[in-house]
Amino acid sequence: MENLELIRSLKIPADTKIVMLVADGIGGLPIEEGGPTELEAASTPNLDHLARKGVCGNSIPIRPGITPGSGPGHLGLFGYDPLKYQIGRGVLEAAGIGFAVGPNDVAVRCNFCTIDAQGRITDRRAGRIPTDQSAPLARRLNQVSIPGVEVFVEPVQEHRFVVVFRGEGLGGDVADTDPQKTGVPPLDPVPANEASERTAEVAIRFVEQARGLLAGEAKANCLSMRGFARRPDLPSYEQVYGLKAAAIAAYPMYKGLASLVGMEIIGKPANLSEEIDVLERAWKDYDFFFVHFKYTDSRGEDGNFEAKVKMIEQFDAVVPRIEALKPNVLIVTGDHSTPAAMASHSWHPVPTLLVGDHCRPDTCQKFGEREALLGGLGHFEALHLMPIAMAHAGRLAKFGA
Amino acid sequence: MENLELIRSLKIPADTKIVMLVADGIGGLPIEEGGPTELEAASTPNLDHLARKGVCGNSIPIRPGITPGSGPGHLGLFGYDPLKYQIGRGVLEAAGIGFAVGPNDVAVRCNFCTIDAQGRITDRRAGRIPTDQSAPLARRLNQVSIPGVEVFVEPVQEHRFVVVFRGEGLGGDVADTDPQKTGVPPLDPVPANEASERTAEVAIRFVEQARGLLAGEAKANCLSMRGFARRPDLPSYEQVYGLKAAAIAAYPMYKGLASLVGMEIIGKPANLSEEIDVLERAWKDYDFFFVHFKYTDSRGEDGNFEAKVKMIEQFDAVVPRIEALKPNVLIVTGDHSTPAAMASHSWHPVPTLLVGDHCRPDTCQKFGEREALLGGLGHFEALHLMPIAMAHAGRLAKFGA
Repeated sequence: MENLELIRSLKIPADTKIVMLVADGIGGLPIEEGGPTELEAASTPNLDHLARKGVCGNSIPIRPGITPGSGPGHLGLFGYDPLKYQIGRGVLEAAGIGFAVGPNDVAVRCNFCTIDAQGRITDRRAGRIPTDQSAPLARRLNQVSIPGVEVFVEPVQEHRFVVVFRGEGLGGDVADTDPQKTGVPPLDPVPANEASERTAEVAIRFVEQARGLLAGEAKANCLSMRGFARRPDLPSYEQVYGLKAAAIAAYPMYKGLASLVGMEIIGKPANLSEEIDVLERAWKDYDFFFVHFKYTDSRGEDGNFEAKVKMIEQFDAVVPRIEALKPNVLIVTGDHSTPAAMASHSWHPVPTLLVGDHCRPDTCQKFGEREALLGGLGHFEALHLMPIAMAHAGRLAKFGA
Repeated sequence: MENLELIRSLKIPADTKIVMLVADGIGGLPIEEGGPTELEAASTPNLDHLARKGVCGNSIPIRPGITPGSGPGHLGLFGYDPLKYQIGRGVLEAAGIGFAVGPNDVAVRCNFCTIDAQGRITDRRAGRIPTDQSAPLARRLNQVSIPGVEVFVEPVQEHRFVVVFRGEGLGGDVADTDPQKTGVPPLDPVPANEASERTAEVAIRFVEQARGLLAGEAKANCLSMRGFARRPDLPSYEQVYGLKAAAIAAYPMYKGLASLVGMEIIGKPANLSEEIDVLERAWKDYDFFFVHFKYTDSRGEDGNFEAKVKMIEQFDAVVPRIEALKPNVLIVTGDHSTPAAMASHSWHPVPTLLVGDHCRPDTCQKFGEREALLGGLGHFEALHLMPIAMAHAGRLAKFGA
């Protein structure tokens, strides 16, 4: 039986609250032989206190050896099998700017490009046109009019923007039009199946009109389209867990991901401290809170060990404010590791802790990678974390008699 | 999604080399309460050095509690789900003598047996006829001629030999003809489905002619057939991993298993030291090397604790030669445990280590069963080992954005 079905069939109501605190990319690596990881190097008295109080372990985001992107990384944490529920690139890009992709939508990642008089691409990224120049151009494309279809065009960054087609009968399987090289014109959008034929027609008409609207531009006089995608059909947190769930995040991508599973996006926090302000104010109104901290990942991606250590210490500092709310279950984890030593996401398991009633204690004294190997949660696939949290929150019935 | 599909979709080229060193049956048990296992008792300074440098864990060959044969044990290590890809006995026996079973082949394990004048079996193993007497008889059976089918007969050992039928429309589901007792004639080969009817007919004709060719023999005047099987449809290492893979083994069985997944069998080493000679000579020509050491299993099967300890020490001694080649990823594992205390394969997890770039250190100081419980790889199913190795070799792209 699939995990979600099982949980859905066992969920029971309870007056308990769960907080999932995600430090993006928190897992790391030493930068010198025998040295500590970022998390081990950081001074984290509050997380260490939680590690002693609760149970630790290692979360495997997808499967051993697999490095996740943010989309699958978060789906796993939310309890959805990331190999079953795949989020198309267009939808992810839309999520990344906080655009709520609906059930009749096809989202597409687009690039402005430069073409010559013969229509051949001379620059696939329109000279990486600055956002302050490209954003007005993207907005201009909202003038495109196609009967029976609503068209939304939203700027992203530099040459990148998102197009969403909304209408009946729009399949999501259309080939990319970016030829991945210069000297040739953009490709036609080719439908992969009958259900996507209309989408391809719509895309052709969109490009025609867009080229008219961009005709006078020096750099961004054309566009290519990639990652056509419909929204994955995800059951909501309410349906699966019976939880009224809120997401608190500063970055659009994570709000977008949370909204795909039906979480309500609350507040407009600009940083972690403001996120906790939002959490405190909304405490009475929800059963579940996903709180996302971005900068552990960002500094890991920068390859900056010391800066990531500092971010972990910032993260640690807000823990007492969350504990003061007395959540029934408090989870601290990450969607993947981002070792500064690799300056990228990685496949390494993510140190994870859970504090709640009926935690079986282990011997962990600190929150860190080596210590978590002694933890009571062992190595587990991320999608099992929510069921464990639900159990500790008294929200799961017995399976079978 | 199936593991192989996932890996296949994520593989990227890299100029890195992986060595998988398999000490067959390396996992063990103490022979006295509180005592060490064979691996713990052995002096293994080189493996201990690797354990400190890399990451350790426990490989579960199939599933917890399941004792694997050599076939599934190796398939798991190679990353193929041994419960999905089952190798029939006939194919395994053919693999064991290095016979390359093709896509139109049905392979059968056969025994010479002795029958009396009434056709009743008096000895199911033909008095364990010595190989120097049985091999010429097996070869003689190549005289059998069946229209539309090629017949290959190859000696194995003592009363055992292999028959391969090659032709169109030969199913692999035919019942054994060995009645498993004496005093009765061999059974007829009964097809289990329509697709195997022709195979059963071919087998009947083979037995008829073979009995004619063996009529004058005192011991081996008849035969029984078991384990009819077609080759499993395995994608190759090249297809799944993008690896040009070589297998270095002294025993035919392991060469046969490696050839089923498309590894190239290189050299004719007679022992471990010669295997490493082959490895050194071929180092430039392949991306992946499977190196198989048999005697840890053999001495375990003998129930000889001390002898197995010595074999482990022999195994340890070649490690510096492999390290000197500077593989990007070096794995040391086994296909299963073979505790001398049980004198057989067992279900116990197999101590495993992996050394490579970006290994997250754990606290393991030695290579051994107890110590591996502290390891960063945790308990994992064997089929995840290859993806982990691929990750460390920089050969897997990120999953999702």
